[in-house]
Amino acid sequence: MKQPTAILLIHCPDQPGIIAVVTDFINVNGGNIIYLDQHVDKDQKVFFMRVEWELDSFVIPPNKIEEYFNTLYASKYNMYFRLYFSDYKPRMAIFVSKMSHCIYDLLARYITGEWHVEVPFIISNHPDLENVGTRFGIPYHVFAVTKDNKAEQEAAELALLEKNKIDFIVLARYMQVVTEDIINKYPHKIINIHHSFLPAFVGAKPYHAAFERGVKLIGATSHYVTTELDAGPIIEQEIVRVSHKDSIDALVHKGRDLEKIVLSRAVEKHIQRKVLTYKNKTVVFN
Amino acid sequence: MKQPTAILLIHCPDQPGIIAVVTDFINVNGGNIIYLDQHVDKDQKVFFMRVEWELDSFVIPPNKIEEYFNTLYASKYNMYFRLYFSDYKPRMAIFVSKMSHCIYDLLARYITGEWHVEVPFIISNHPDLENVGTRFGIPYHVFAVTKDNKAEQEAAELALLEKNKIDFIVLARYMQVVTEDIINKYPHKIINIHHSFLPAFVGAKPYHAAFERGVKLIGATSHYVTTELDAGPIIEQEIVRVSHKDSIDALVHKGRDLEKIVLSRAVEKHIQRKVLTYKNKTVVFN
Amino acid sequence: MKQPTAILLIHCPDQPGIIAVVTDFINVNGGNIIYLDQHVDKDQKVFFMRVEWELDSFVIPPNKIEEYFNTLYASKYNMYFRLYFSDYKPRMAIFVSKMSHCIYDLLARYITGEWHVEVPFIISNHPDLENVGTRFGIPYHVFAVTKDNKAEQEAAELALLEKNKIDFIVLARYMQVVTEDIINKYPHKIINIHHSFLPAFVGAKPYHAAFERGVKLIGATSHYVTTELDAGPIIEQEIVRVSHKDSIDALVHKGRDLEKIVLSRAVEKHIQRKVLTYKNKTVVFN
Amino acid sequence: MKQPTAILLIHCPDQPGIIAVVTDFINVNGGNIIYLDQHVDKDQKVFFMRVEWELDSFVIPPNKIEEYFNTLYASKYNMYFRLYFSDYKPRMAIFVSKMSHCIYDLLARYITGEWHVEVPFIISNHPDLENVGTRFGIPYHVFAVTKDNKAEQEAAELALLEKNKIDFIVLARYMQVVTEDIINKYPHKIINIHHSFLPAFVGAKPYHAAFERGVKLIGATSHYVTTELDAGPIIEQEIVRVSHKDSIDALVHKGRDLEKIVLSRAVEKHIQRKVLTYKNKTVVFN
Repeated sequence: MKQPTAILLIHCPDQPGIIAVVTDFINVNGGNIIYLDQHVDKDQKVFFMRVEWELDSFVIPPNKIEEYFNTLYASKYNMYFRLYFSDYKPRMAIFVSKMSHCIYDLLARYITGEWHVEVPFIISNHPDLENVGTRFGIPYHVFAVTKDNKAEQEAAELALLEKNKIDFIVLARYMQVVTEDIINKYPHKIINIHHSFLPAFVGAKPYHAAFERGVKLIGATSHYVTTELDAGPIIEQEIVRVSHKDSIDALVHKGRDLEKIVLSRAVEKHIQRKVLTYKNKTVVFN
Repeated sequence: MKQPTAILLIHCPDQPGIIAVVTDFINVNGGNIIYLDQHVDKDQKVFFMRVEWELDSFVIPPNKIEEYFNTLYASKYNMYFRLYFSDYKPRMAIFVSKMSHCIYDLLARYITGEWHVEVPFIISNHPDLENVGTRFGIPYHVFAVTKDNKAEQEAAELALLEKNKIDFIVLARYMQVVTEDIINKYPHKIINIHHSFLPAFVGAKPYHAAFERGVKLIGATSHYVTTELDAGPIIEQEIVRVSHKDSIDALVHKGRDLEKIVLSRAVEKHIQRKVLTYKNKTVVFN
Repeated sequence: MKQPTAILLIHCPDQPGIIAVVTDFINVNGGNIIYLDQHVDKDQKVFFMRVEWELDSFVIPPNKIEEYFNTLYASKYNMYFRLYFSDYKPRMAIFVSKMSHCIYDLLARYITGEWHVEVPFIISNHPDLENVGTRFGIPYHVFAVTKDNKAEQEAAELALLEKNKIDFIVLARYMQVVTEDIINKYPHKIINIHHSFLPAFVGAKPYHAAFERGVKLIGATSHYVTTELDAGPIIEQEIVRVSHKDSIDALVHKGRDLEKIVLSRAVEKHIQRKVLTYKNKTVVFN
Repeated sequence: MKQPTAILLIHCPDQPGIIAVVTDFINVNGGNIIYLDQHVDKDQKVFFMRVEWELDSFVIPPNKIEEYFNTLYASKYNMYFRLYFSDYKPRMAIFVSKMSHCIYDLLARYITGEWHVEVPFIISNHPDLENVGTRFGIPYHVFAVTKDNKAEQEAAELALLEKNKIDFIVLARYMQVVTEDIINKYPHKIINIHHSFLPAFVGAKPYHAAFERGVKLIGATSHYVTTELDAGPIIEQEIVRVSHKDSIDALVHKGRDLEKIVLSRAVEKHIQRKVLTYKNKTVVFN
């Protein structure tokens, strides 16, 4: 089995020597760095870094690293940082509606152990895909939302998420606007797939709009959900060529493969702690 | 040398047997079909076709084909059609401002005979690229436009275009809105390159907007110019991947290669008479 | 429900008027053409065509169409043709070994009715993926092949295929060479996915070879299986960018998404009767 | 004007702390780092790094940096390194034969100052493209090679290269094998464009071979020339989709745009000192 590692994600005002300081902290204390990538946004003068190191000979105990790092460096350099450990499996809830192509792709990866993640349950606003949950042995909870019960249902959803210690949420073609309450509890922890190359075709029926406009490419975009519709930080995008020969149905059909791949790429990067957000944009490390 | 051919572009309400009727017209009269492609828009119930045939044994003289076809078929089937002859070289005017990557790409193709086209002159609102014209031996006319002289300058431009029997215009990063007078004289005969994947980032400074939005792809779009800005029929689009590492300058730099290739592909399709427009969209034959 | 249709795939020596003849045959006899695409290979002087029409008002009964078409046209024009009916569901067998990404993708499409196909069973040379069959309720037959039992096992496989009237076979990362007996019974009816852009990296361990060579793109190729290894007609190919940062494991990982999409695209085209083979190449209609 | 910078390219056996050591060397001596990227090849246990810093406050004089760095670090860490200065313009010779699409693309970039490079002359084995040189005001030297004069001509070429202090050579569709003498004088300093996705279709007529094989993608590869044909370290590759509709001529035509873009990307990376070679592979920094 692989050694447990610590992963540190940092951003802070850029200044000389930060890499040296951080790598020195790890090296001097017996950590073996197995990943290091960094980025400087020259316009914003912000420094971004992801570093991962093996813990077995590291002299600071895991539960003290955050405190030590904070005391010794973070406050000094005005750092925003997050610390993760590879031996913790993040807990992911999947939200679906009636289309199954994305959830099948997610679950096939999950069930074969491709991802280091736990999926305790699926939430839906429709009963249609319960059989998908059954097929993979994952509980499927239906929260049918009407005008009258919206507040209660969302409260119930949130309770379920919190009770199960869900770390992040994947909207796998979930065709309902997520309430602000949930968004605020999961800031930059809800990943959506939108079926267009944003910012083109925000909102409903993007394939219809793409057909109408006569574009020669269609796209899909995975992004973190914020309270503004389809406007959160973009994690990944991809396109496929289309032509005058493609009807709306053909666009929808071609788009399905895009959507599932683009969503899964984003989920994977999130699970691997390779996404940093800053000013409504993402740094996605390789 | 290649045989002269006739090229017929058609669209009409869809009904059975149109291909048979048109190909029969050509075959029976001794034309050898060397290209045939067709498309049916099922939603609009419109039929589109491009057919090209060799003229050497065709019994109808070239200058009579239009009349015969119109009389015998076009009115009967309610066809919109255009007839072209391969032995005519279309005359193309290039408009530029200060950036030269697109015009170099166009002129390199022109000067080596890659395209069956004539370029009588270049028009610009700035003197900067006169040396490009000189390099390739092509007259370069500057029409510097100010608030006061706009109407006159545009009239002078139009006069130059008409005097030189220009068939179509290519805006090779021409950074000024073309007057409606010119657009109306050249309906779906002005090809522009916009430096984004439309309909995202319409208008000025799309790379800045793309950077701001944090997209993971940038694009370029070639389209026919209509009186609504960046809203005409799209001919071709392409994208390239970008990441958080790319500054605005890097986007501009990466975008240049996209722009020139996407513009040249559209110009080529136009020269080959492979683009049909219908309801603000294009059918681009292979 | 959709109307039943007939699909005709043709290739023959090119000559003028074949489209007219075939469409006339359909129109005159009351068939409504809903798809027509054609291609001429100018080098080989071969004509290819796919035409599909609705049968409900067609005067020739389905079981007589083949005979009539053969008598009236096929022999006259020296045509090779195949006739299919949309109300027949082709029967597809899936072969797997130990990797599940392709079969999950195929079965998710199958089970949700995305494809008009029947999957009676899965065949494997290993028991590992039996649970995938169970999950989707599809029988899973293991034929473990050793040096001693190879001939018997293959005979048993072939018997199973024939007893179940299998129309075509999909090798979903089946890591064993298929015997010539089976290949000969299913000419251009066995679809394989090879994990490289053929003809580069034929044979075993293409990702290792790609890493070794330092390529900047990796690919996947779906093709019909012939008796020469990885040399059959190519149906579809796709690539993804890689860099010096990608280890062999990373190539394998990135390649999985390619493989499943490229295989599924080929299977879909095959199910839709849109692939014609000629001289070890394919014509893949849109 | 931009500040002059120093660029250091390094590879060495991997060990902890190298980044810290190198960045410390620069920071402590007053250099402002404006670029840093690194890569570890885990298989080979090799560390690669590119670092660039502003020289204006750097206390070590430019002409002493190499010596100091070598003494203090390179021998200690067993480093292979190269040092470049941004105020030196590398000198590039272009070799062409009869096709002009690549050289036009290179020269348009050169002449507009897109690249920090000097092009003292063009060498060709044919007189055909002399007018391209004339157009851009660049001397064009013809070395027509026959069986009898091969040795002399190559010696003359080499003399011309050395007399003009050429730093690197670009083969812009130069259709003749470069002699080993020149290759050995310019190790990993000759950039070629091969019109296929290597290692597929090595050698002559790759588009013919691609057509014959029926591939669905064609590619182009830029690589450093070594004495083994088409087998040197790959710098960049790209592909474009093709179909059964594309004749050999169409492949050649589509390929031209690929070739010029792929070659120019490689040349740019080389000029920017962003390519490191190791064991017949490249590390291409972003």
